[in-house]
Amino acid sequence: MIVSALLTAVGINLGLCFLFFTLYSILRKQPGNIKVYAPRLVAVRKSQESSHFDIERLLPSPSWVRRAWITSEEELLASCGLDAVVFMRVFIFSFRVFSVAAFVGVFILLPLNYVGNQLKDTDFSDIPHKSLDVFSISNIDDGSPRLWVHFCAAYVITGVVCYLLYYENEYISAKRIAYIYSLKPQPHQFTILVRGIPSSADSSISESVERFFTDYHSSTYLSHVVVHHSNKLLHLIEVPAAFVFFKSRYGAAIASRMQQSINPIEWITEEAPEPQDVYWPFFSASFLERWIFKMVVVIATIILTIVFLIPVVFVQGLTNMDQLQILLPFMKPILNITIVSQVVTGYLPSLILQLFLSFVPPTMMLFASMQGYVSHSEIEKSACVKVLWFTIWNIFFANVLSGSAFSQAELFLEPKNVPSMLAVAVPQQASFFIAYVVTSGWTSLSSELTRILPLLSDFMGQYCFKCIRPKFEVPSIPYHTHLPIVLFFGLLGLTYFLLAPLILPFILIYYSLGYIIYRNQFLNLYSAKFETAAKFWPIVHYSTIFSLILMHAIAIGIFSLKKLPLASSLTLPLPFLTLLFNDYCRKRFLPTFEAYPTECLVKRDQQDQNDPTIGDFFNKLVTAYRDPAVEPVKYSNDKDEPSTPLLSEHV
Amino acid sequence: MIVSALLTAVGINLGLCFLFFTLYSILRKQPGNIKVYAPRLVAVRKSQESSHFDIERLLPSPSWVRRAWITSEEELLASCGLDAVVFMRVFIFSFRVFSVAAFVGVFILLPLNYVGNQLKDTDFSDIPHKSLDVFSISNIDDGSPRLWVHFCAAYVITGVVCYLLYYENEYISAKRIAYIYSLKPQPHQFTILVRGIPSSADSSISESVERFFTDYHSSTYLSHVVVHHSNKLLHLIEVPAAFVFFKSRYGAAIASRMQQSINPIEWITEEAPEPQDVYWPFFSASFLERWIFKMVVVIATIILTIVFLIPVVFVQGLTNMDQLQILLPFMKPILNITIVSQVVTGYLPSLILQLFLSFVPPTMMLFASMQGYVSHSEIEKSACVKVLWFTIWNIFFANVLSGSAFSQAELFLEPKNVPSMLAVAVPQQASFFIAYVVTSGWTSLSSELTRILPLLSDFMGQYCFKCIRPKFEVPSIPYHTHLPIVLFFGLLGLTYFLLAPLILPFILIYYSLGYIIYRNQFLNLYSAKFETAAKFWPIVHYSTIFSLILMHAIAIGIFSLKKLPLASSLTLPLPFLTLLFNDYCRKRFLPTFEAYPTECLVKRDQQDQNDPTIGDFFNKLVTAYRDPAVEPVKYSNDKDEPSTPLLSEHV
Repeated sequence: MIVSALLTAVGINLGLCFLFFTLYSILRKQPGNIKVYAPRLVAVRKSQESSHFDIERLLPSPSWVRRAWITSEEELLASCGLDAVVFMRVFIFSFRVFSVAAFVGVFILLPLNYVGNQLKDTDFSDIPHKSLDVFSISNIDDGSPRLWVHFCAAYVITGVVCYLLYYENEYISAKRIAYIYSLKPQPHQFTILVRGIPSSADSSISESVERFFTDYHSSTYLSHVVVHHSNKLLHLIEVPAAFVFFKSRYGAAIASRMQQSINPIEWITEEAPEPQDVYWPFFSASFLERWIFKMVVVIATIILTIVFLIPVVFVQGLTNMDQLQILLPFMKPILNITIVSQVVTGYLPSLILQLFLSFVPPTMMLFASMQGYVSHSEIEKSACVKVLWFTIWNIFFANVLSGSAFSQAELFLEPKNVPSMLAVAVPQQASFFIAYVVTSGWTSLSSELTRILPLLSDFMGQYCFKCIRPKFEVPSIPYHTHLPIVLFFGLLGLTYFLLAPLILPFILIYYSLGYIIYRNQFLNLYSAKFETAAKFWPIVHYSTIFSLILMHAIAIGIFSLKKLPLASSLTLPLPFLTLLFNDYCRKRFLPTFEAYPTECLVKRDQQDQNDPTIGDFFNKLVTAYRDPAVEPVKYSNDKDEPSTPLLSEHV
Repeated sequence: MIVSALLTAVGINLGLCFLFFTLYSILRKQPGNIKVYAPRLVAVRKSQESSHFDIERLLPSPSWVRRAWITSEEELLASCGLDAVVFMRVFIFSFRVFSVAAFVGVFILLPLNYVGNQLKDTDFSDIPHKSLDVFSISNIDDGSPRLWVHFCAAYVITGVVCYLLYYENEYISAKRIAYIYSLKPQPHQFTILVRGIPSSADSSISESVERFFTDYHSSTYLSHVVVHHSNKLLHLIEVPAAFVFFKSRYGAAIASRMQQSINPIEWITEEAPEPQDVYWPFFSASFLERWIFKMVVVIATIILTIVFLIPVVFVQGLTNMDQLQILLPFMKPILNITIVSQVVTGYLPSLILQLFLSFVPPTMMLFASMQGYVSHSEIEKSACVKVLWFTIWNIFFANVLSGSAFSQAELFLEPKNVPSMLAVAVPQQASFFIAYVVTSGWTSLSSELTRILPLLSDFMGQYCFKCIRPKFEVPSIPYHTHLPIVLFFGLLGLTYFLLAPLILPFILIYYSLGYIIYRNQFLNLYSAKFETAAKFWPIVHYSTIFSLILMHAIAIGIFSLKKLPLASSLTLPLPFLTLLFNDYCRKRFLPTFEAYPTECLVKRDQQDQNDPTIGDFFNKLVTAYRDPAVEPVKYSNDKDEPSTPLLSEHV
């Protein structure tokens, strides 16, 4: 790719972004669109459709940017929950990282690269027709002492990322602990889910649960509901799972974290999800079934990853003009037109890739839902991890390695060659990924903001086919679609930091725009369907560590490729130091994201004792968990009155 | 190695074994030796030195074999504890595995190998001068359909091993659960160890502990003792660790398994070891110090493994006569004597190796003790794992790969080539390992039985230098020395099952002898210094799974080397199925070996309530944990009397 092609892509996309932003600032002010652009505000009744006309409505204005900017983190937390705050922290963290990276990259590394002689292209004239490679490390002479600057930059950026990551871990842990202290009693804090209840001939499941928990948790057990399942004939079936309620958070936590039964695959307990977060379909599966499903999903995920390579390889072909002209000789006259060639090489490839990729998150969501999780949030977290790995593998590695005709399998089969393989292949794809950030990254943000599809569907329903107007619903942010993309740009930025620093300003722009746009969306659009209280954060942590290690592997390869083996050897400690840092963080912070400690739980329980409404809360607790499809059977544990089964028949 | 050399080695070692056994059966009857051969019985006063002379005393007799044989498992459990029973179960399990393996190997695979033509050596005459290779898979013709028998044998033996392993897991889990039910209240069941107690300016460590546990475990907290440490000036220092006592097993279990503090590296709790099992030196280390020590130990273990290769490579040289004659030309006349050559090739190499290896367990024990464990049993378990991996790496892989001039590092760097590399290298070392089983294996058993060194030291003390007579002490079995050897022979047997089935009868003999000898030693010699209640078992499980996977890798390589690629491909599912089996076992059985479930603990606590002696037990509990070097400070939590520090000064 040459500089002018990049400039074309940047121009087109900047124009598009500006157009979309202007469009949004007008469209959002139209009263008819309020349910498209601010459904959250409609739901909490802060905003109403009004037909009052005003010339102001037709003028673009940046007031939404200002509102998104000035809202404090506390306000965001109060109105959108901790998960939204954590999602925004990813932008803040990334912005800080790439401010430093872009400064070092653009003002130190890029000039060094440009004055190199390796590509024999050092006159300062005719920049527009230069290949982007003159700005990359490829242009530094082999064995040049200037590479020591790159070596130092690798250490500096690793230190900066680790420092910021540590700070962020500390900050979000503290937020999470503060969150539980601030939260009123919630049903899921007092509830556990029990699965694998052994069946016995002489007692029902409900009787077994009652007996087990009065025997072993006599002081904290409150009551329980058995989960039911309806078959096709709408008969209720006795499922071996139950929600068990406790008198204290600590009691529930103990029961959920200790192994209950002598047989570890019976009486399996776990923290209950929030009532609205429960995913019911997989309650009937036994331990063995869930285990088999999990294995099947693992295999299916691997197969999807392999099959997906076919369109990716095809897309790769499109980035290479010469190859395209050989494949489609009749297109040659059209392809020779400058603007067409620039669009084809700069814009089209990542658009096609984007189209294919849009099918991946729903598929991964389906896979995750088959793994036996009992909550939407866990399913989404699992899908998020799957989509992230899929993205890294199929966008980064597949593009890098098929572009250089390497087989991806060799990564695993010959790990010794990984650094040298990546050192050869990764820089060759620098232009592709710069274009990818500009097109895919920026476009995804604009389309996130303007919501063209929901707008059209609402418009059609409102004015053309009233019967198909969709039911008003406040959407929740699909983390498994958004978070992997955000993290992937971080990976691109860190891996190309040393190789092609030209990518860094574009990534910095991506995070700046993203910060404003997602804040705006949280404030106006999305409403949380569940609250995991920062449980998504460890994904960000591990993704960052992986990006660093990948950067180190490439650095080791590139220094030895550039005939500076000493720098290559001296880079070797860097991944080990990073892994040590990761191990320390895992011990210091990870437990906080998994479960609340005794100190927290007992303190909150003690505070409740002075709360006059707690009795009322416990009365409502037993009815909190109801399958929307089937009403569960409820047993009361109140010793004073006989235990009567209250069977609510399913209609 | 030729058949006659093997027969020489077998002859020498059978003779030695017979000699040692006869010697033992006479020596053990001499009253003066009773403290050498039956110290356990002396300690429990079942046996006394007597000077009564009897001609019977000078005649060898197999009565000890009979006694070891007829003792039931219940008697062994009652007198030697569960760890001893589990150690003996390893022999029973291995014996069962290798009965089947030896049957299949000797009666099906070995004849098939022998009638092959690959080594052009199929006349049935002159067996003594034949190479052992004619009995190995190397003699099967390339592409021969007979290899399908080997293929089936791989599936059959994997199935048999998995079935027996599952059975054994189930059996030992049940034993472990039964054990806690049968056990009287023990101090360590009611005690936890707390480390990382945060220091504060306004209160002592003891006050902090008191406050924390009365705040958060008010219903179960009993009292505590703070651990002290004396510096070189014999001053007591305020160490941030304490033993905390609880009123119930369940209370202690909850406090040890739940994260206590908001900061996960403060108030770190774990189950207390048995009082006599406590390892005191590392109590003063902070979380960060222990973490750094652990990393240092990991690196030290890796370095030891690498440095150790030097003597191993030297030993390798000795097994190869031709190379030896080139290296030491002046020795040629001596080496040409048949018996010398046979001893050199058949016996000497493994003896030298053995000598070097004897330094490894103490070193690994030292490393493990630096990792911050607080009990001898944990240190021994960790050393056991280290020695096992060391043995597998330095005896199996180093011999196999340096014997074929391969670099071991390639195992990690090019995992793709592992099966083919092993398929070439492993069969070449078959003779070495057959000799190794016969010499090292059998000899280690004889020397275990006769205890030549302790006998000599006792004799010298008794009759020559009375002043240096060692203090009478009942030894405990060093699991980290014995268990890795026993497991390593299992690995050898499984990996050579397909390649050189001739090894199997010798391994079967090893396990048969071992069963009798170790039973005898447990009954007469060893006394348990600690009781982990089968916590060593998972090491056996994982070692067996690893051996199976290694066998599969070699099988895949050998089938493709023997030009039967279909069999090679069809073997591929086998390691995956084995890993699935392992994953299931991990979920089904492993939790039982880590901690006791609620069901167990609550039931035992309830039984205690009817025990009239329990009050007395609690009174003694607080004095159970005392550093033999320093007396700890004791605080009583009895609310009725004021909390008085009883400072027992260190002398």
